[in-house]
Amino acid sequence: MEHKTFPSWPDTAPYLIEVAAGRAPAQTVIRGGIWVNVHTREALPDHDIAITHGRIACVVPDASHCVGPETEVIEANGRYMIPGLCDGHMHIESGMLTPAEFARAVIPHGTTSMFTDPHEIANVLGLEGVRLMHDEALIQPINVFTQMPSCAPSAPGMETTGYEISAEDVAEAMTWPGIIGLGEMMNFPGVSNGDPKMLAEMAATQNAGKTVGGHYASPDLGPAFAAYVAGGPADDHEGTCEADAIARMRQGMRSMIRLGSAWYDVETQITAITEKGLDSRNMILCTDDCHSGTLVNDGHVNRAVRHAIECGCDPLVALQMATINTATHFGLEREIGSLTPGRRADVILTSDLKTLPIEHVMARGKTVSIQGEIQVDCPHLDWPENARNTVHMGKTLTGSDFEIAAPNGANSVTANVIGVVENQAPTKALKADLPVRDGLVQSEGDVCQIALVERHRATGGVVNAFVSGFGYKGPMAMASTVAHDSHHMIVVGTDHANMALAANRLAEVGGGITLYKDGIEQALVELPIAGLMSDRPATEVAAKADKLIAAMVDCGCTLNNAYMQHSLLALVVIPELRISDLGLVDVRTFEFIPIFDDV
Amino acid sequence: MEHKTFPSWPDTAPYLIEVAAGRAPAQTVIRGGIWVNVHTREALPDHDIAITHGRIACVVPDASHCVGPETEVIEANGRYMIPGLCDGHMHIESGMLTPAEFARAVIPHGTTSMFTDPHEIANVLGLEGVRLMHDEALIQPINVFTQMPSCAPSAPGMETTGYEISAEDVAEAMTWPGIIGLGEMMNFPGVSNGDPKMLAEMAATQNAGKTVGGHYASPDLGPAFAAYVAGGPADDHEGTCEADAIARMRQGMRSMIRLGSAWYDVETQITAITEKGLDSRNMILCTDDCHSGTLVNDGHVNRAVRHAIECGCDPLVALQMATINTATHFGLEREIGSLTPGRRADVILTSDLKTLPIEHVMARGKTVSIQGEIQVDCPHLDWPENARNTVHMGKTLTGSDFEIAAPNGANSVTANVIGVVENQAPTKALKADLPVRDGLVQSEGDVCQIALVERHRATGGVVNAFVSGFGYKGPMAMASTVAHDSHHMIVVGTDHANMALAANRLAEVGGGITLYKDGIEQALVELPIAGLMSDRPATEVAAKADKLIAAMVDCGCTLNNAYMQHSLLALVVIPELRISDLGLVDVRTFEFIPIFDDV
Repeated sequence: MEHKTFPSWPDTAPYLIEVAAGRAPAQTVIRGGIWVNVHTREALPDHDIAITHGRIACVVPDASHCVGPETEVIEANGRYMIPGLCDGHMHIESGMLTPAEFARAVIPHGTTSMFTDPHEIANVLGLEGVRLMHDEALIQPINVFTQMPSCAPSAPGMETTGYEISAEDVAEAMTWPGIIGLGEMMNFPGVSNGDPKMLAEMAATQNAGKTVGGHYASPDLGPAFAAYVAGGPADDHEGTCEADAIARMRQGMRSMIRLGSAWYDVETQITAITEKGLDSRNMILCTDDCHSGTLVNDGHVNRAVRHAIECGCDPLVALQMATINTATHFGLEREIGSLTPGRRADVILTSDLKTLPIEHVMARGKTVSIQGEIQVDCPHLDWPENARNTVHMGKTLTGSDFEIAAPNGANSVTANVIGVVENQAPTKALKADLPVRDGLVQSEGDVCQIALVERHRATGGVVNAFVSGFGYKGPMAMASTVAHDSHHMIVVGTDHANMALAANRLAEVGGGITLYKDGIEQALVELPIAGLMSDRPATEVAAKADKLIAAMVDCGCTLNNAYMQHSLLALVVIPELRISDLGLVDVRTFEFIPIFDDV
Repeated sequence: MEHKTFPSWPDTAPYLIEVAAGRAPAQTVIRGGIWVNVHTREALPDHDIAITHGRIACVVPDASHCVGPETEVIEANGRYMIPGLCDGHMHIESGMLTPAEFARAVIPHGTTSMFTDPHEIANVLGLEGVRLMHDEALIQPINVFTQMPSCAPSAPGMETTGYEISAEDVAEAMTWPGIIGLGEMMNFPGVSNGDPKMLAEMAATQNAGKTVGGHYASPDLGPAFAAYVAGGPADDHEGTCEADAIARMRQGMRSMIRLGSAWYDVETQITAITEKGLDSRNMILCTDDCHSGTLVNDGHVNRAVRHAIECGCDPLVALQMATINTATHFGLEREIGSLTPGRRADVILTSDLKTLPIEHVMARGKTVSIQGEIQVDCPHLDWPENARNTVHMGKTLTGSDFEIAAPNGANSVTANVIGVVENQAPTKALKADLPVRDGLVQSEGDVCQIALVERHRATGGVVNAFVSGFGYKGPMAMASTVAHDSHHMIVVGTDHANMALAANRLAEVGGGITLYKDGIEQALVELPIAGLMSDRPATEVAAKADKLIAAMVDCGCTLNNAYMQHSLLALVVIPELRISDLGLVDVRTFEFIPIFDDV
């Protein structure tokens, strides 16, 4: 896999040889550092790194013979020189940022390689959306590899996406320069059951010599798991306990352990290495989903590495899990992931291997960050109009669009209610008795309304149902066009008029998240690209997201970071109860159910 | 990389899934073994392996659900189940056997994958020879991957090969189905000096996504080594001491440690793992060169694994060095090298992990050997006539062709003599005072004559010189068409008439090795294919080779296995003094020198 914008090792070899032999000066020499060698798992003091044409020419005790009058010399001053960090699996859209702004946010954290699955935009814009993400990825100063999304829709027949991904799309994408493999194969029942479309997607990937990403989100390690592994996925990041990690590695998959904004799957799985003593080469750190706030305040892959070390992992082993292990997995071990000749010169200088302060970052031989300050431009793609204009509601909504009519003559109903659970992705399928007034079912107490507003094909469709657990009080509504996985619009509210205001507002700004209270907008995060991403910097987006969270609290929501719960209410692949543009879905049975039981 | 003759994982996945899920019976189940897991480095008792379509469907504690009425059940009876062994770098021609007969010899030793560099035949028959070896490799019941030879001639300008390999040849070979990479890049000074032809060959390989084999046969670990690494070779098997192994692994190469018939480089290098504690993932076992006698009497890669264990290496680590490490290196870790779903079902049953008796061998799901007895056919290619008719001398030689005329009027000369050293590849550049009789220089004492007889283009060329160290007494001569690397014919003898007899005899039989004493043939190893290989079984070839060695001893040769020294006397890349079809070569300076000093 080559990035168009970056010459290959063989293209560069004549220059690398001249520098290594001492016949030509290096462009840059990093002098006097401790060489963290992730091949041998050693920290070797007193080494220099000579760099030319963006790649490492040599790593030697003394590179004086590579220094000429024009050579830039960077003094490591005895600090550790570690390879730039790799995020083994992640979704850029989760940061609500474009690839450029995501890169700008994570470069100061030492991330120089990301394996990104633009699954969200695929649901909104299809293959074109993937191509746009891929194209912006390719022009970044760091290595952003694209995994072709595999499952749009993620639950065929249960929802209508903006676009669908076909096996032919996958085969086409495999010819693009920045495609590194297939994104997480979420349809695990499909694979275990031999679904021909899923097998065709994996075959197209394998036949192209690329890596099939996995997603086996089930605790069942019996025949269903065995069949999934036999189907071809090469990694999995859905493990949550030690047994999951061990099972995956024993079966010849790589276990990706995840520390995202809301995923804490490192501590429970890394014991396979730290306590059980298994070979660590098949464990990889990843983030999967990071909010912009996490990127601004806490870090990115460096946060996962630090956390792994805090969990008792040897720092050199933890670094292998974010460098060479990842590179090897994707067939890139001679391209990235270690500080050795021929590889891209992605280097971090840090004075402490445990706390891992990211003091200096180089990517492809250029300094890209110093002490947390970015030193480089992250170019934006000129996103086309159709990617910026994706909220198609067909009409202006009014309060009456959110009315739920009761069965004829009923005075009350027993409603099926989506029960939100704090800090968890699964919901509960609850029941609630609700009163009827003027023929309309009334939400009350902790139960409020949820609506799935169709926004891809301007059908004007609104599916209404009930949700509980947010704790909202008083007339309010919150709407979001981030609505996994098909990304219609989810509106949650206590009041029909506010619901209409919020929904219409998002149509007006082209997507995002808004919260109305008493008819007045309290917070707005504009996400004009596909209704998923902002092209503003992470700091700005994070500040707006913070304001939104504050507005949720102000409306009575006591849950931790409940925006995540909001955006997942249409994720019809995770139990128990969800809403889609086709109705209320019981994910335990994959069947549609009515909003209330027959009277 | 796919073998034409074997369906890929994606082709097989639908069947694997059905078996793993328990919806279809396996073709074979191995029941009740200890699963040697080279991913996690564990030995896990009480596991079953279910196999279908030549690949592993699942490895589970109980595969009863995969057993149907037609399923073949093999009882492991508590024995270890280990992956078939991989030889990371080797030359089939060194066994003096065709690929088919080599495979037949090594299958009972548990070898199921070989990475073979047909460098010798490339010198005789060029790209066509490589293709023939590749084609016979592809039809074997085990995995024989071909490395495209990189250096024919190995010393341009110092010798004339039958054919030369060009960068275009390399690029073409990269499109063949069985080519896994580039064979050892022996021209290490060329790489370090940026030789465009060498760089073009490596670029063609890298651009095809394949592995560049290395060969850095120098103790210099300074800038010349750094420049070689920067050029692109991904492995090296020429290390001889711990520092060599460590340097290669630190620089991001894989260290291949070698136990061949005459190479003992494991014990001195494995201490990098066993004593220095470096990460073992980048160390690989290989044999490089094995005589047929070694294959018959001692073993193949299993011998190297046993030896590594005897040297103190953990058996599981040693097995990783001959399985998953090798597979990963060549980008085949999802194809071979472990007992996990999707991989080719290459399995060994053994009752002891240290002494490693090879009791049962399966390759691609079929039993190929039981208790050392082969159970399968190894198909021969129908070798074309031109490959069987490669000894072109142009004329019948007579004793006078081996006469060395003295300078006019000289009574004696001081000759440059190739000094053979026991058990070593390098020779010594010696001097000897030799008498002159009837205008001809006479060999005497331990000095006898050596001749390089041109045999590729029928030029009739004979280059004569002197050699010492064999200890031959009485009228005799030994001739061989195995004459590394250009494989003309080397004749060593004490007597011109016997030299002519031996040379003519090889022309008559189409190549091989013969020894004449007192005008009578004492031993003959026919090697009709390219003058390098027999298509007879290893046992037969080994018996003939034994007889030849006995005949050498009978002629007074006291050196251990001096046939090897004989065949290397034209190897103009290893110091100090060699003979080529162009003259006597001082390899210390890469210059031709006269046979005797000016009088």
